[in-house]
Amino acid sequence: MSHTDTIVALATPSGTGAIAVIRVSGPKAIDISDTLFESIRGKKLKNQKSHTIHLGHIVESKKVMDKALVSIFKGPNSYTGEDIVEVSCHGSTYIQQQIIQLFLRNGCRMASAGEFTLRAFLNGKMDLSQAEAVADLISSDSEAAHEIAIQQMRGGFSDQIQKLREELLNFASLIELELDFSQEDVEFADRTQFNELLNRISEVLKKLIDSFALGNVIKNGIPVAIVGEPNVGKSTLLNALLNEERAIVSDIAGTTRDTVEDQISINGINFRFIDTAGIRETKDVVEKIGIERTFDKIEKARLVVFLFDALDFDKAELVKIKQRYPNKELLPICNKMDMLNDSEIAQIKNEIPETIFLSAKHKTGIPDLERKLLSLVDSGALSGDETIITNSRHYDALRKALEEIQKVKEGMQMELSGDLMAIDIRQALHHLGEITGSVSTDDLLGNIFSNFCIGK
Amino acid sequence: MSHTDTIVALATPSGTGAIAVIRVSGPKAIDISDTLFESIRGKKLKNQKSHTIHLGHIVESKKVMDKALVSIFKGPNSYTGEDIVEVSCHGSTYIQQQIIQLFLRNGCRMASAGEFTLRAFLNGKMDLSQAEAVADLISSDSEAAHEIAIQQMRGGFSDQIQKLREELLNFASLIELELDFSQEDVEFADRTQFNELLNRISEVLKKLIDSFALGNVIKNGIPVAIVGEPNVGKSTLLNALLNEERAIVSDIAGTTRDTVEDQISINGINFRFIDTAGIRETKDVVEKIGIERTFDKIEKARLVVFLFDALDFDKAELVKIKQRYPNKELLPICNKMDMLNDSEIAQIKNEIPETIFLSAKHKTGIPDLERKLLSLVDSGALSGDETIITNSRHYDALRKALEEIQKVKEGMQMELSGDLMAIDIRQALHHLGEITGSVSTDDLLGNIFSNFCIGK
Repeated sequence: MSHTDTIVALATPSGTGAIAVIRVSGPKAIDISDTLFESIRGKKLKNQKSHTIHLGHIVESKKVMDKALVSIFKGPNSYTGEDIVEVSCHGSTYIQQQIIQLFLRNGCRMASAGEFTLRAFLNGKMDLSQAEAVADLISSDSEAAHEIAIQQMRGGFSDQIQKLREELLNFASLIELELDFSQEDVEFADRTQFNELLNRISEVLKKLIDSFALGNVIKNGIPVAIVGEPNVGKSTLLNALLNEERAIVSDIAGTTRDTVEDQISINGINFRFIDTAGIRETKDVVEKIGIERTFDKIEKARLVVFLFDALDFDKAELVKIKQRYPNKELLPICNKMDMLNDSEIAQIKNEIPETIFLSAKHKTGIPDLERKLLSLVDSGALSGDETIITNSRHYDALRKALEEIQKVKEGMQMELSGDLMAIDIRQALHHLGEITGSVSTDDLLGNIFSNFCIGK
Repeated sequence: MSHTDTIVALATPSGTGAIAVIRVSGPKAIDISDTLFESIRGKKLKNQKSHTIHLGHIVESKKVMDKALVSIFKGPNSYTGEDIVEVSCHGSTYIQQQIIQLFLRNGCRMASAGEFTLRAFLNGKMDLSQAEAVADLISSDSEAAHEIAIQQMRGGFSDQIQKLREELLNFASLIELELDFSQEDVEFADRTQFNELLNRISEVLKKLIDSFALGNVIKNGIPVAIVGEPNVGKSTLLNALLNEERAIVSDIAGTTRDTVEDQISINGINFRFIDTAGIRETKDVVEKIGIERTFDKIEKARLVVFLFDALDFDKAELVKIKQRYPNKELLPICNKMDMLNDSEIAQIKNEIPETIFLSAKHKTGIPDLERKLLSLVDSGALSGDETIITNSRHYDALRKALEEIQKVKEGMQMELSGDLMAIDIRQALHHLGEITGSVSTDDLLGNIFSNFCIGK
C-alpha cells in the first residue's frame, strides 16, 4: 500500500530545548523540502544521497526562518519506507510551530498519532507486534519493561509466531486441497507431521500465554500496600525505599490520610508502593474514610506489607488482615528494630516467624526487604532469553489461537471431516495473524496507533 | 583553544517524545561512539564520511539498549568545530538517561549549560554576539524577537562592529607608532581620515544605541495596564484580545483581585497586558490592596488603557490617573458601545476626543484598539533592514565605546598628545571588542553561557 500524501509532525518532546526535530514523510517529502530549504552549498536535496545531512536555512519567500540541519532518507531505506526529511532546528516552540506551519502551507498534512509507524507497518518495514513494541519502548520506565520492548521490537516472538503460522498455513492448504479431491479419498497432508506441528504450536502458545502474568507485572509494576498502625513509620519506610521525601512524614498519628503512590525499581522490576492510612479502630470520620480506603487498596494490591512497631507490638491487626484476606501475600515487618534487644527479637520471631526486622529511620534492614520483595516475582524468565508477553491484545489472540488449535487436535482424534477441521485451522491462522498484523482491520489499526504519540 | 575532554548532553526538550537527540562533542566523540554503537552494516563510524547517518544499535556489553540513528560531523565542519556525534534514539526518558549514562561511563563528561555553543565561540565558529543570539533565538516567542535574533545570529551588526574596530585598531597602531618617533614630530596617521573614521563610528554607535529602546520592547514586550471601574469589562476585553478565557470573568464587581498578566502578539510585537483591580474608592481591605497594586502596575506599564462603561460614564477616575501620572501614555476606551446611540457617542467624543469605542463582549472595535496599540511602537525600523540591539550587555558596551570615541574626538580638537589619545582609543577598542568577544574574560563568558540551556 503506498500513500500519496506527505505528512509532517514534531518528533521531539514539546517545549523548549536546544534543538527540535520535525519529521516529514511521503512521496513529496524531498521536493517540498527543496522549496523551503536553501543549502549553504547551494545544492538541491533531491540530488543528494540518502542518509546525508545538510546545513542551510529554512526560508519562506526570501525570509530566513531558521538555520537548520536537514537529514534525508530515501525510501525504502527509511523508518516509514517512504522518503523522509528530518529538520533539526533551533528548539524554540515559536520556531517549531512556524516550520511545521510552513510545511503545512506547502503541501504537507499534519500527521496523526502513530502515523509514521503505521506507514512503516503498512510498507512492510515491521510487523504489527514490532510496531506496538515501539510504543511500549517509548513508554517503558524500568529496565525490565525496556528490555522486553526492545526484544519484541527486534522481532522477538513474532518471528516465531510467523514461522509457525506459515507451517500451519501450508497444512491448511493441503487439507483444503484434499477437499477438492474428496471423491478420491486422498491424503495430501501427513497426519503424523500435522499432529507434531499442532503439538509444537500448542507448546509455544502455552508458554507465551503463561509468560503474560510476569509480563503484565513488569509492564505495570507490582502493587504493594503498606499497612500498619498510625505513627508506626509507614511513610518513613516508604521514604527509605524511595530514597526521597515524597510522602508526608509527621509525628502526629494518622497523618497519612490520602493514599500516596510511588514507584521504586528493584533490579529492574517496578513496585508501586501504596501508603495507606492504617486500620486502627477510630471514631474520627475522616480517619474512618482512610481505613476504608486502606481495605480498598489491600484488595487491589498483590502484596501487603504489614508494618508494626517493635515497642508497641500487638498481633491483633495482623490477624484481622489475615482473616479478611486469607489468600493475600502478607509480609510482617518489625520497624524500629534498633530499640530491641536480642531476646525481644527472638520473642517476636517466635510469634511471627516470617517477620523482617528493620529500622526505616536509620535505613537498616532495607536490603532484606528489597530481597524479599524481589523473591515474590518469578524473574527467572527475565535473566534467561525466554520470551515474555506484555500486551493484552497479544495475550487474547494467543489464547484464542490456542483454543482453535485444541479444537483441531480434538478433531484429528475424532477423525473429523476435513472441511470442518479446515474452519478451525483458518480461525487459528486468523488469530495468529492478528498478532503480527498479517490479518488486520482498519478498526484494529486505528485502535493500536491512536495510542502512539504524534510524530512517531 | 582546543578541548581535551568530550562532552555529552540531551539536546532535545526533556520529557517523552517520539525521538530524543543526545549530542556528544569533543576529540573522542567518534571513538567513544564506536565502542557503544553497532552499525547494521557492521561499519565503524570513524571510517565514515562527515554529515552521514547510520542505523544501528546502542549496545553495552552485548546488551542492546536501543535501536538508533547516529549522525556524525567531523570537525571543523560541525557546530562546535569539534567532532560531533548525535544519537537519535527512542524518546523515553528512561532510554535518554540510560544512553547519557552509558556515554558518561565510557569517557564523556556531562556538558554544562551552553557549553556546546561556548566551544563553538572558542573555536572561532561564531563571535560572541552570534552565540548570544542563539540563546535569544531559542527563547524568542514572537515574530519580531525571532527575526532580530536570526539577523544577529547570521552576523548582523557584529560584522559591522568588527570592521569598524579593525579600522580603528589600524589608526591606533599608527598613532602608537608616532609615539616611538615622538622626537621627530612625524604624523603617520592622517588626521583628516582619522576624524572621518571617528565620525563614522560615532554615527553607527548612536544609531545602534538608539535602537535599543525598540529592541528592548521587542524582546520583552510592552507592558500595558488595563484600568477601570469594577465590572466595566476589563477581563472581558483582555479575553477578547487574547481570544482565550484566561482571566476570570464574573458579574460580581471587584472579581479581579490578583493582577493577571498575559501576552498577545500584534503584528509580531508582544504586548504584555496587565489586568488590574481598578481604582474605585472602597472600604473593603482586600479591594484596597488591589487598588494599590493597580497603581503599582500603572507605574510599571508603558501604556495605560482606561476602560469605562458607555452607560456609566464618569470622567473623575480618568482625571485622577492623568493627574497622578501626567507623563504616562493614557488610552481611554469606551466599552459596551452597542448600548449607545449616535448622539451619545458624539457626546463622549466631545468630552474625551481620543476615546476608542468598542464592545469587548461582542468583539467589535478590537482591531481599532490593536491598530492604536501598534502605532505606539515605532516599528518602522523593523520592516526595513535596520539593525536593532536587544541585548543590554551590547547596549552598555556600545555606550561606553561611544563615550571613549567622544573623548578621542575632543582630544583631537584640543590637539591632545598622542599618548593620552592612545589610551582612550584602546578603551574604545576594548569595549567594541567586548561585543564580538575579541576581548573576553572567563567571568564574562561564564555569565553569558550559564544562561543557556543544557545541550546547546
